[in-house]
Amino acid sequence: MDITARKRKHLEVCLEGPVNYARLTTGLERYRLAYRALPELRLEDVDLSTRFLGKRLAAPFLIGAMTGGEEHGGRINRALAEAAERVGVGMMLGSQRVMLEKPEAASSFQVREVAPTALLIGNLGLVQLNRGYTAAHLRRAVEAVGADALALHANPLQEAVQRGDTDFAGLRAKLGQVLGEVPFPVLLKEVGHGFSGEVARGLAGLPLAALDVAGAGGTSWARVEELVRYGEVRHPELCEVGLPTAQALIECRAALPGLPLVASGGIRSGTDAAKALALGAQAVAVARPLLGPALQGPEAVVEWLEDFLWELRAALYAVGARTPAEALGRVAAV
Amino acid sequence: MDITARKRKHLEVCLEGPVNYARLTTGLERYRLAYRALPELRLEDVDLSTRFLGKRLAAPFLIGAMTGGEEHGGRINRALAEAAERVGVGMMLGSQRVMLEKPEAASSFQVREVAPTALLIGNLGLVQLNRGYTAAHLRRAVEAVGADALALHANPLQEAVQRGDTDFAGLRAKLGQVLGEVPFPVLLKEVGHGFSGEVARGLAGLPLAALDVAGAGGTSWARVEELVRYGEVRHPELCEVGLPTAQALIECRAALPGLPLVASGGIRSGTDAAKALALGAQAVAVARPLLGPALQGPEAVVEWLEDFLWELRAALYAVGARTPAEALGRVAAV
Amino acid sequence: MDITARKRKHLEVCLEGPVNYARLTTGLERYRLAYRALPELRLEDVDLSTRFLGKRLAAPFLIGAMTGGEEHGGRINRALAEAAERVGVGMMLGSQRVMLEKPEAASSFQVREVAPTALLIGNLGLVQLNRGYTAAHLRRAVEAVGADALALHANPLQEAVQRGDTDFAGLRAKLGQVLGEVPFPVLLKEVGHGFSGEVARGLAGLPLAALDVAGAGGTSWARVEELVRYGEVRHPELCEVGLPTAQALIECRAALPGLPLVASGGIRSGTDAAKALALGAQAVAVARPLLGPALQGPEAVVEWLEDFLWELRAALYAVGARTPAEALGRVAAV
Amino acid sequence: MDITARKRKHLEVCLEGPVNYARLTTGLERYRLAYRALPELRLEDVDLSTRFLGKRLAAPFLIGAMTGGEEHGGRINRALAEAAERVGVGMMLGSQRVMLEKPEAASSFQVREVAPTALLIGNLGLVQLNRGYTAAHLRRAVEAVGADALALHANPLQEAVQRGDTDFAGLRAKLGQVLGEVPFPVLLKEVGHGFSGEVARGLAGLPLAALDVAGAGGTSWARVEELVRYGEVRHPELCEVGLPTAQALIECRAALPGLPLVASGGIRSGTDAAKALALGAQAVAVARPLLGPALQGPEAVVEWLEDFLWELRAALYAVGARTPAEALGRVAAV
Ligand SMILES: Cc1cc2nc3c(=O)[nH]c(=O)nc-3n(C[C@H](O)[C@H](O)[C@H](O)COP(=O)(O)O)c2cc1C
Ligand SMILES: Cc1cc2nc3c(=O)[nH]c(=O)nc-3n(C[C@H](O)[C@H](O)[C@H](O)COP(=O)(O)O)c2cc1C
Ligand SMILES: Cc1cc2nc3c(=O)[nH]c(=O)nc-3n(C[C@H](O)[C@H](O)[C@H](O)COP(=O)(O)O)c2cc1C
Ligand SMILES: Cc1cc2nc3c(=O)[nH]c(=O)nc-3n(C[C@H](O)[C@H](O)[C@H](O)COP(=O)(O)O)c2cc1C
Repeated sequence: MDITARKRKHLEVCLEGPVNYARLTTGLERYRLAYRALPELRLEDVDLSTRFLGKRLAAPFLIGAMTGGEEHGGRINRALAEAAERVGVGMMLGSQRVMLEKPEAASSFQVREVAPTALLIGNLGLVQLNRGYTAAHLRRAVEAVGADALALHANPLQEAVQRGDTDFAGLRAKLGQVLGEVPFPVLLKEVGHGFSGEVARGLAGLPLAALDVAGAGGTSWARVEELVRYGEVRHPELCEVGLPTAQALIECRAALPGLPLVASGGIRSGTDAAKALALGAQAVAVARPLLGPALQGPEAVVEWLEDFLWELRAALYAVGARTPAEALGRVAAV
Repeated sequence: MDITARKRKHLEVCLEGPVNYARLTTGLERYRLAYRALPELRLEDVDLSTRFLGKRLAAPFLIGAMTGGEEHGGRINRALAEAAERVGVGMMLGSQRVMLEKPEAASSFQVREVAPTALLIGNLGLVQLNRGYTAAHLRRAVEAVGADALALHANPLQEAVQRGDTDFAGLRAKLGQVLGEVPFPVLLKEVGHGFSGEVARGLAGLPLAALDVAGAGGTSWARVEELVRYGEVRHPELCEVGLPTAQALIECRAALPGLPLVASGGIRSGTDAAKALALGAQAVAVARPLLGPALQGPEAVVEWLEDFLWELRAALYAVGARTPAEALGRVAAV
Repeated sequence: MDITARKRKHLEVCLEGPVNYARLTTGLERYRLAYRALPELRLEDVDLSTRFLGKRLAAPFLIGAMTGGEEHGGRINRALAEAAERVGVGMMLGSQRVMLEKPEAASSFQVREVAPTALLIGNLGLVQLNRGYTAAHLRRAVEAVGADALALHANPLQEAVQRGDTDFAGLRAKLGQVLGEVPFPVLLKEVGHGFSGEVARGLAGLPLAALDVAGAGGTSWARVEELVRYGEVRHPELCEVGLPTAQALIECRAALPGLPLVASGGIRSGTDAAKALALGAQAVAVARPLLGPALQGPEAVVEWLEDFLWELRAALYAVGARTPAEALGRVAAV
Repeated sequence: MDITARKRKHLEVCLEGPVNYARLTTGLERYRLAYRALPELRLEDVDLSTRFLGKRLAAPFLIGAMTGGEEHGGRINRALAEAAERVGVGMMLGSQRVMLEKPEAASSFQVREVAPTALLIGNLGLVQLNRGYTAAHLRRAVEAVGADALALHANPLQEAVQRGDTDFAGLRAKLGQVLGEVPFPVLLKEVGHGFSGEVARGLAGLPLAALDVAGAGGTSWARVEELVRYGEVRHPELCEVGLPTAQALIECRAALPGLPLVASGGIRSGTDAAKALALGAQAVAVARPLLGPALQGPEAVVEWLEDFLWELRAALYAVGARTPAEALGRVAAV
């Protein structure tokens, strides 16, 4: 399957589902917000704005990395970007490898026109550093779309199931090298199987700008790839391999106390987001739930985002937190 | 929606349901009564009578705050009050703000005629202290209906979902002030999302007469307000925010050892009530289950109460407790 | 309802059900037998025989107290007794109060003819000591049927639900007194709500011959009485009051290290019985499952018992225990 | 039922099912693989090859002991053996007692022709040492089929339910003696009810080559035998006696740190296998899932095995383990 066909199939499968983990959950349901019957503040005092990767966001929210390079990619990306601009949240693009390899795919990643000021984050697979990519490629990806930062995704399980690029040897060292050679902030992410504390500790010392724990409990990319390959799930146990988002977050927070963390993977509501902030995230990211709205257009995305952020605001208010930072710790095990 | 229409809608939604928490339970099911095969007493020795807010009750039971000011309000309140009088339990009125603002609504709160001696507790929203209410308003609420005491409800989550009065800043201080200016006992309550130990500790030093923990597991007022607003539940996770009644009770008991506590939120049977007493409550309150009987009339309420109290008596007997106070501690984790 | 009618209704309700606890289980499912792949013995070496209340039993098994005094009582009792004799297990009769009060009911308890050597245990309610019964009544009950011992049942919850004899004041002292005045062994039992360690400690010093913990998880007698009274369960939470059999056993074993214990309440298989022995019981008792076979006749009861005991033998073999006593401790938490 | 008829019935019952434990699971679901988003290796670097019982296997996998001596036995064994040879895994034969007793059954165990180099393991019941079998019989079993090693199965519960050979007295001593008299490696196994740490400790000092914990969670042989005997499960609790595979493995690993362990009983996927390796097994064995493919022929078995091993490889890659041995410990409690 060529890269464009594969991307089309990804979208199809993600829309038809079910692509969620069958058994694993995010683990956020094991925590409850520490409700304060006397929050001692006004709902309108709650200020969601956040600095992230050098820009001010109206809320600690990123549209998750999803697409680009195929039929509907341009339309989806522009809808997401326009909404991000209007609402004031950040946006991660889907993997730009297709655009580096097929110049005609580039247009579907061009969203600066509709999102002139939004935090825009480019995206490439970390494994490409073992396939000839250098700092120059990373720079090209960022510059070509006018991004503010770059996300590199580490996805060995997805690649294994996809029979894709599975040479993950020596990547930590290569990552260390390119990080010193690019002028923009770089965020490292998984695609939904999660970073553990152990792996996070191995990243200590690298000049990363942020880590997106991208844990288990939402979209299982092993599952997506099985559905793409077989039209069914043949290795259901393998598709449940991963570290639940809540636990990934807790472990990474402990492992890397100073690094900004994004919580993603199965974040589905403002209440989920509030729990993630309470557990130590600086921001959350949501991917698949935005696919449907994006196909409908920017209005639908804006509506989705505003509803989500209204709930986040209400949830912070309910724990008496004036800001995302104040939410830290306002959570208890169920 | 004006305040009377809203109140009508509350009743409708509470009757049609489901307005119970979807996942959270009271936590009382995690405890079992410490059954004594040899209770060493007679069933008729069990004496449920209790002093509460300065009056003697035939049993440690309060009819929960519910209504007033709308179509059926008067009928419901009179049925509840007449039953309270006959059975000898206490009764909390619904929020009297409507009556302070619309004099024509006052009649629906007038129940002294049918309940000349019952413990009657008035009700106002704590947040109104930030909307101009003073000790004079509290006094007016109590005097206008001949109440013995006043309940103030703190309900930030309900207000947030309702897009209501969400200015909860500085309320602890204002509460402290008015408490010094009113001559009757004041009870502080939530509406079903619960007081935590942390929040309770913040109340230490205030001359409160009692605290109703009003925890999660029964009616979720976030849910009621979503159903009122949208006709459906749009933020299901937010509607599950709250502290289960059993845990709220345990935490508040530890935080405020000397303060009389009411356990409410999902109390549904005399056995539940016995567990609450065993976990440290001085009395329990029940709201929604009484709505149906109240619409049928005082007879139905009396019957409901007597059945509930028969079970409470049997449950205390089963743990060998002669009085509600003796039940303390006669419970074990499942 | 007169006593004979009530007993007929008990049988009816127990046969139609469901009279089992709705939520509580025996807790035996939380333990697994410590299987030994190398038992180092022969299956035929397993010797189930046990001394209990002064007699030798072919197996540590008692047919639970059930009936007498009504229509089918005689037939049931004779079927059970004949089977007990043939298989070599013990048998508890149902409450003999009816026969002390209505002489014409006596015949239904007469089983010595068909069970000349079996361990036969009479039965009376402990609460009758507060209704005028003395050691003389106890002796009469035992002598009238030629029993070897007497079981006294403590059943305050059942009596409360039944609106029966609920004067349990001072019973420990009265029990102490009559125990000194009767020449036969006395066993104390509940009827399925269980003895706790706390209550058992209160029995220390009494010359009891054995204690049947009669815990929760099998037949709920509060439930039976609700079904008898209302034709439905009106107080479902009250019907779940009780201490699960496994826990009752563990607590009583710790409280009274020297006293022979019977485990009953929800014992349904030889594997359950083996777990009970492993947790410290000297014997088990089973009531309701034998009702159906008893109505069919002695053959059916013998078959039921032999099948049960075959499984018990296999289970002891599987943990490498040559005798019931050797099974002690061969169990682990799941 | 004669031995050949019984074996035919075993196959039938195992194919029709359900013969899996009804409640017990392997316990592997309580563990998750410690996923590494940065495995720092190439998928093709993962080397599954393993030395086991003196031979090199392409992967740490044994086809479980299943059949021989009846109608389809020869066909099944040859299919399994041919596949084992092609894929490079080991194979355990079914019990060879039938062939020692009925010479005409021998041919169905002859698989060396189609599996000249594969690790081939003969099989006899340990209990036969109490029925006259000596080291000479063990040698005959191994030599007659050209096996590399012998598995002895200990199965007291199966034998009890089968009303088979239940004299397990003194077997540890007899095992110790024959082990000193045979020139080939001997593996001890259960048939799916598991070896506990306690029993394993009793094996310390014996010159065993390996122990297959053969725990609970997959095929319950008590259940199979009940289905063979009664056409239904009459003693469901007894059929759940056993130690879950994960726990058996953990206990045996602690009890016998130096002994190679096989994990079997309910191993159903490469992910399960990876968890077993992580918990301390040197290899896994799978029985019943291979029955269907074996009836179809060698191709189907090869396909099944390759798919299983592909998943095992992917799972090891996902935890960053280059070899089965490196997987040790890469697991965490859920
Ligand atoms: C349709 C789709 C395409 C995706 N493509 C990419 C991608 O190109 N690069 C990437 O880093 N992650 C990609 N992801 C993964 C998401 O960014 C995210 O990590 C994962 O879906 C888990 O989040 P979720 O549960 O909110 O969907 C994609 C997700 C979806 C649903
Ligand atoms: C119809 C209805 C109206 C209510 N109105 C009020 C109110 O005016 N003031 C108040 O403090 N609580 C009010 N409550 C909340 C209850 O007092 C109680 O805290 C909550 O319903 C949880 O108890 P429950 O689970 O027994 O219903 C109302 C409850 C119901 C069902
Ligand atoms: C039909 C029936 C009648 C019973 N009658 C008595 C009785 O007269 N006296 C007594 O001590 N227990 C009586 N029991 C209680 C049993 O002895 C036993 O404690 C209880 O049923 C729990 O055991 P099970 O779960 O095996 O049924 C009766 C039980 C049944 C099912
Ligand atoms: C059809 C069949 C026949 C079996 N026969 C034997 C046997 O002869 N000897 C033996 O040691 N185990 C025998 N077993 C047991 C298996 O080797 C294995 O221990 C057990 O089935 C649990 O593994 P599983 O869950 O993968 O099936 C047999 C299993 C099956 C399914």
